[in-house]
Amino acid sequence: MMNSRELHVIKIGGSVANDRARLTAFLDAFEQVPHPKVLVHGGGSAASELCRKLDIPIRMTDGRRITDEPALEVAVMVYAGLINKQIVARLQARGCNALGLSGADLNAIPARQRSHPTIDFGYVGDIEAETLNTYFIRRLLDEQIVPVFPAITHDGQGQLLNTNADTIAATLAIALAGHYTVELTYCFDKEGVLENPDDDTSVIDSLSRQRYDALKQSGAIAEGMIPKLDTAFGALSRRVQQVRIKGAENLNHHTGTRLIL
Amino acid sequence: MMNSRELHVIKIGGSVANDRARLTAFLDAFEQVPHPKVLVHGGGSAASELCRKLDIPIRMTDGRRITDEPALEVAVMVYAGLINKQIVARLQARGCNALGLSGADLNAIPARQRSHPTIDFGYVGDIEAETLNTYFIRRLLDEQIVPVFPAITHDGQGQLLNTNADTIAATLAIALAGHYTVELTYCFDKEGVLENPDDDTSVIDSLSRQRYDALKQSGAIAEGMIPKLDTAFGALSRRVQQVRIKGAENLNHHTGTRLIL
Repeated sequence: MMNSRELHVIKIGGSVANDRARLTAFLDAFEQVPHPKVLVHGGGSAASELCRKLDIPIRMTDGRRITDEPALEVAVMVYAGLINKQIVARLQARGCNALGLSGADLNAIPARQRSHPTIDFGYVGDIEAETLNTYFIRRLLDEQIVPVFPAITHDGQGQLLNTNADTIAATLAIALAGHYTVELTYCFDKEGVLENPDDDTSVIDSLSRQRYDALKQSGAIAEGMIPKLDTAFGALSRRVQQVRIKGAENLNHHTGTRLIL
Repeated sequence: MMNSRELHVIKIGGSVANDRARLTAFLDAFEQVPHPKVLVHGGGSAASELCRKLDIPIRMTDGRRITDEPALEVAVMVYAGLINKQIVARLQARGCNALGLSGADLNAIPARQRSHPTIDFGYVGDIEAETLNTYFIRRLLDEQIVPVFPAITHDGQGQLLNTNADTIAATLAIALAGHYTVELTYCFDKEGVLENPDDDTSVIDSLSRQRYDALKQSGAIAEGMIPKLDTAFGALSRRVQQVRIKGAENLNHHTGTRLIL
């Protein structure tokens, strides 16, 4: 059965959230998106920059970054504090009734600290659509409130955790797809997924999983785009109606890349 | 007409919020306070410490601290970010459905940037009970949700502001006193207001405004206690039913100082 009510789950990365002019253009566009809608934001380089200023070393293991306690505190300050509250205040100024919600607030996004046989990732939280608490999120949406989620969750035992913002957006979209027709949009630096990474105009209009696999093999899609697209395809295969990848400034234009199964 | 439903508005200072053991003792006690209840927290020395680590100079004018843009960003990160989310996560671990709310979230606490003929205080917000948006706060309380407010507000035009946590607690208490019988509690370092500032056992059981004026004149009550008590007496004269000043660890004991008109 189709749910007739459409919900927009929109994710912006740190490169948009940390750039005042780009954020303004995005928020102007976001304001025009019809209710109900949810915003998820990363924090990107702002946290690394604060770590650098505070002389907090970036710990790596096997090429992966470790979220130790000082790094987590910085992430909470920057994502759930500064960026989240700046976005909320700027949405309120546009008449949009925003409410910042970390995963701890209302216990909206319970997470499990990542466990791995050989790597200690530190305070990183893995989440599942089944354990999200959508009850209050849906109540808020019914009241025309716009939840704004930073990349912070908690373990339910008092420990805050850092969770990838792409994952939060996809997991919220999946969890809410039982109640709404959900359109998930990842806004990022390019106008969409590029067929040729060196040509910004080579945006792929619609990307099937088969073509995605071929573009991965050819190397046209690589690095950070792979986990992003894996997460996005995962949402599409789990009841999320539409998944789009597009430029933050063109939120309401029929541009970007639409994923198809 | 009396409102039969009792609401507890409880404020803790930075010295409790920044001390893990003291915060644990306080949260254990707070958990026992019956619904509905609201928590307001300061941030105290944690923000100054982060300013120091970041080499952000503390700007003063006429002996008063100026909240310039870097100082505001630190306040937002520490108060609305780290401290607020740590408290929310630790309350959730106790089964208490906490929700962190800066004044920007849900536009709960609109403020006006302080204007003064000769001093530029920077990003400091003054607030009034009449302009608080209690509608959603009351809806949240009806759902057994516990709002947790840091000392951050906004001007409604996208600018975050720093507002004293004692003032936020008193103003929330006044604004909600039309809907509940409100008990306002300021938790701080001492067990109550002291008759002799050098004797921690000289707690005044009930303090009238007359006696307060006399103790101010004699110098027994001085410095930071004066604005705190002025704010507290202001709440008592504006429909707030009970105002208490007590130690954070003795929240549920019949100790501390009760203010009387």
